[in-house]
Amino acid sequence: MKILLAQINSTVGALEYNRDLIISVIKQRSLDADIIVFPELALTGYPPGDLLLESHFIQQTESILCQIIKTVSSAVVILGTVRRSGKILFNTAAVIQNGKLLGYRDKTLLPTYDVFDEDRYFTPADVVETFQLTIAGEPVKIGVEICEDLWDREYPQKVSSELFSQQSDIIINISASPYCVGKNEERLKLVREKVFEGRRWFFYCNLVGAQDELIFDGGSFAVNPDGVLMDKAKPFETDQLLVDTKLSKPSTSTEVIPREEEIFSALTLGVKDYFIKTGFKTAILGLSGGIDSALTCAVAVNALGADNVIGISMPSPFSSEHSITDARRLAENLGIAFHLMPITDINEQFLITVDPLFKNTESGLAEENLQARIRGNILMSLANKIHGLVLNTGNKTEIALGYCTLYGDMCGALGVISDLNKIQVYEISRWVNSSRGKEMIPHRTLTKAPSAELKPEQVDPFDYDTVSPLVDEIISDNRHLNYLVRKGYDEKLVRELLGMIRVNEYKRRQAAPSLRVSSKAFGIGRRYPIVNGFRE
Amino acid sequence: MKILLAQINSTVGALEYNRDLIISVIKQRSLDADIIVFPELALTGYPPGDLLLESHFIQQTESILCQIIKTVSSAVVILGTVRRSGKILFNTAAVIQNGKLLGYRDKTLLPTYDVFDEDRYFTPADVVETFQLTIAGEPVKIGVEICEDLWDREYPQKVSSELFSQQSDIIINISASPYCVGKNEERLKLVREKVFEGRRWFFYCNLVGAQDELIFDGGSFAVNPDGVLMDKAKPFETDQLLVDTKLSKPSTSTEVIPREEEIFSALTLGVKDYFIKTGFKTAILGLSGGIDSALTCAVAVNALGADNVIGISMPSPFSSEHSITDARRLAENLGIAFHLMPITDINEQFLITVDPLFKNTESGLAEENLQARIRGNILMSLANKIHGLVLNTGNKTEIALGYCTLYGDMCGALGVISDLNKIQVYEISRWVNSSRGKEMIPHRTLTKAPSAELKPEQVDPFDYDTVSPLVDEIISDNRHLNYLVRKGYDEKLVRELLGMIRVNEYKRRQAAPSLRVSSKAFGIGRRYPIVNGFRE
Repeated sequence: MKILLAQINSTVGALEYNRDLIISVIKQRSLDADIIVFPELALTGYPPGDLLLESHFIQQTESILCQIIKTVSSAVVILGTVRRSGKILFNTAAVIQNGKLLGYRDKTLLPTYDVFDEDRYFTPADVVETFQLTIAGEPVKIGVEICEDLWDREYPQKVSSELFSQQSDIIINISASPYCVGKNEERLKLVREKVFEGRRWFFYCNLVGAQDELIFDGGSFAVNPDGVLMDKAKPFETDQLLVDTKLSKPSTSTEVIPREEEIFSALTLGVKDYFIKTGFKTAILGLSGGIDSALTCAVAVNALGADNVIGISMPSPFSSEHSITDARRLAENLGIAFHLMPITDINEQFLITVDPLFKNTESGLAEENLQARIRGNILMSLANKIHGLVLNTGNKTEIALGYCTLYGDMCGALGVISDLNKIQVYEISRWVNSSRGKEMIPHRTLTKAPSAELKPEQVDPFDYDTVSPLVDEIISDNRHLNYLVRKGYDEKLVRELLGMIRVNEYKRRQAAPSLRVSSKAFGIGRRYPIVNGFRE
Repeated sequence: MKILLAQINSTVGALEYNRDLIISVIKQRSLDADIIVFPELALTGYPPGDLLLESHFIQQTESILCQIIKTVSSAVVILGTVRRSGKILFNTAAVIQNGKLLGYRDKTLLPTYDVFDEDRYFTPADVVETFQLTIAGEPVKIGVEICEDLWDREYPQKVSSELFSQQSDIIINISASPYCVGKNEERLKLVREKVFEGRRWFFYCNLVGAQDELIFDGGSFAVNPDGVLMDKAKPFETDQLLVDTKLSKPSTSTEVIPREEEIFSALTLGVKDYFIKTGFKTAILGLSGGIDSALTCAVAVNALGADNVIGISMPSPFSSEHSITDARRLAENLGIAFHLMPITDINEQFLITVDPLFKNTESGLAEENLQARIRGNILMSLANKIHGLVLNTGNKTEIALGYCTLYGDMCGALGVISDLNKIQVYEISRWVNSSRGKEMIPHRTLTKAPSAELKPEQVDPFDYDTVSPLVDEIISDNRHLNYLVRKGYDEKLVRELLGMIRVNEYKRRQAAPSLRVSSKAFGIGRRYPIVNGFRE
């Protein structure tokens, strides 16, 4: 049997566009394959959010599904879409052959945690049943499951096991499984566990492309009944994987992508798709000469091309000389446009204007934030002028601790590295240079002490080697005070960070949407109250 | 039987503070009442969000519940809290008497729509059962249900009916039911429907106080077996309602609160609690001489006192003379501090700085937004300087259409009138003046044409009498194109607005949290994708 995993890049809500992608694969590959598989909610894009509450959105999805059905010939098509039944909605796989809808298989396990809200929209499947098909005149029993149905550890119901026990000849899982570091290996491990249980072919078809904060990494694959990985689609790209269960030999590829490259590719896709899917071309970002803006810029150039990225250096009297030279050097290395726009005069004018309330006060946070917000304003006005988007350059460690200025350096349409801690920022930056075999990110940027340069002699008040992993333990691993102290962290430091993370929730509530690459990012998947009286 | 409905104002996460509130009621009222009832999740505050995923938060809640239990004497206490069982969590009512936990009654219906995410955290009750108590030596069967258990229209399971069919002598519903216009009447109507079915006393105990975007309005009440409203606690205030089922006579109060007053009170509570619960005292806001900032300012003064509100007028060369005089007059009428800080010089300095990219271009959106962002920056720097919070003054109509500047007039810790359409803003402003019996909001502010004054001769490009209700139909009532055209709206206009609402999602994602007073506000209860290719 020949199975084609059609790893497409849908856009949420763009029903006609998605339809055309789907029909084009069907037309091109129907003679090659017995079954053509599309990802979860391939027709609507994932996640459609509250569009699912609009009856006319569902209606249009239904009517476009009918158009697709007409184009299907003898190759069976399995397509992720929504199914309405009275007032309830299912996340479903439509099974189509010879211009007819043969039936649906609904999703059983509905993730409602982290970035997932499926209970808000969907009802779980009533039953788990295999699907009886006729392929080249032969009867075939396939088990169709949807994404979370595979990830059954926390659920009493085990969908894959049920499908195996119903004598499925193969299992096909259609997914919209967002990328995070290590997810790819985890998926394969889990599928192999299932295969060791059922001893049947297992096909995993994942969505590719980015949607707001989420990056779907593709990497669809097939595992044979012995649990051997037979073939794998490209990560972070549209791809089609054709697997013949009779002929296939195990994948001989031993290429291992370094973690840094994997993350860099993920972020690249995230930026690229955000721009393409919102209809923008040009990115603007502030270049401070520091590591965060340097890495963000490198990602932007990789995603959009050097011609479509503009770097702005906005020094103040507190800026070091190297902040300008390092920024300029980065721009030269990456081949992007560069402009110098000092903020000193604007800043002075602001201080004159606000003098009625500032006079006779000590210079402090207000004066520092003022500078950051002037820079934000310059970037936004340039973006407005050239119809571009500002990229936000904040990293996860500083966003966690609130070491950033709301409406200042927190400006931007998209946070590019906001889910990387400061250590990862350095690691990936070094990889950028070594992978290109030359200095892209200036050496001094990689070695100098990080500083916001908002007052004289300022350097970041954190030992990032301690603080970055500690923040990750609190945010990603949900560790509490006692655990962390037992682990050897200084109690005073932990208490301080817990407090900073808590009181800065108000900033994050207004932060730019940020590309998610860890298992727990700030953004839609972390829902903390702003008013929060909890103290450990 | 004497039932005390203890309508308290909990703070999310503030376990010790909430404990003290609860214990103080128990100590003061145990001799007056047979049963003391607290609202849903009174111990944790509502909604606790992802705090519920922290094991140490649950642990501390459990240990504080033990402290409360020890203070309970012969009066039964019914207290909303969380209950852990293995790895799962219930939203529950603890039933306590004589220093002992008698048991729990868990919530059955878990709202997972709009602002509610209960499926993310909780498991529904296994069974619905009445609770057998002994009160003054007599056996009493009470039915305890939690909030949504009453709102059963969309659910197959009917908790109130089950409780009545199990011969409950009374039903007690503990709620954390957020305010929206008309909710109060709806609650009473629904309870009366249930009572007509079961012919028993029904006690409804609601939370009061604001939490981020949500305003809990209290208004707890008791309905007798004939469906008559017997008594009602104050709305928008901490209150205790003692109802004796033997002695009570029907409520004779015929006072009807005007809708405008109700909304004004709700917003006042929203502002007040946000400041108190985050530890701030002073509000700063930009006064444009227009209606939105005027009403916001009136709410702020009502919530915080005139001494704690500072108004800033920030005219540009495009500002009309009356923008300053009307702003000053408002400040005088309300008795608040007022400062004039023209932005002309800063604006000119900005234009000089960005000239490398602005020169030879036509003046447009970039130049307009620049002014709004300078104003945002001034307000934020003043807030930083005096440790105050900026109040956002945007209304729902303009936020829907994106007629506002991100990081400019969209700045602020809290959106005060962001859930009011432009027509409501006028209505409530007029009510402010008439209820005070004198001009608080200047007459000219009420009568002049709305304008952003960001370019010469600019007035808002909307007929608000048409556009405001149309936006509400789209947002609150989820109406689609065909329906609206059939209803008589101009198709071109509807298409235009649908497009504007869609493409401005990116602004709202970074908007200030905003007080919710309608059944569908922007904010946590409306989850639309930014990248969204859907076209009707």
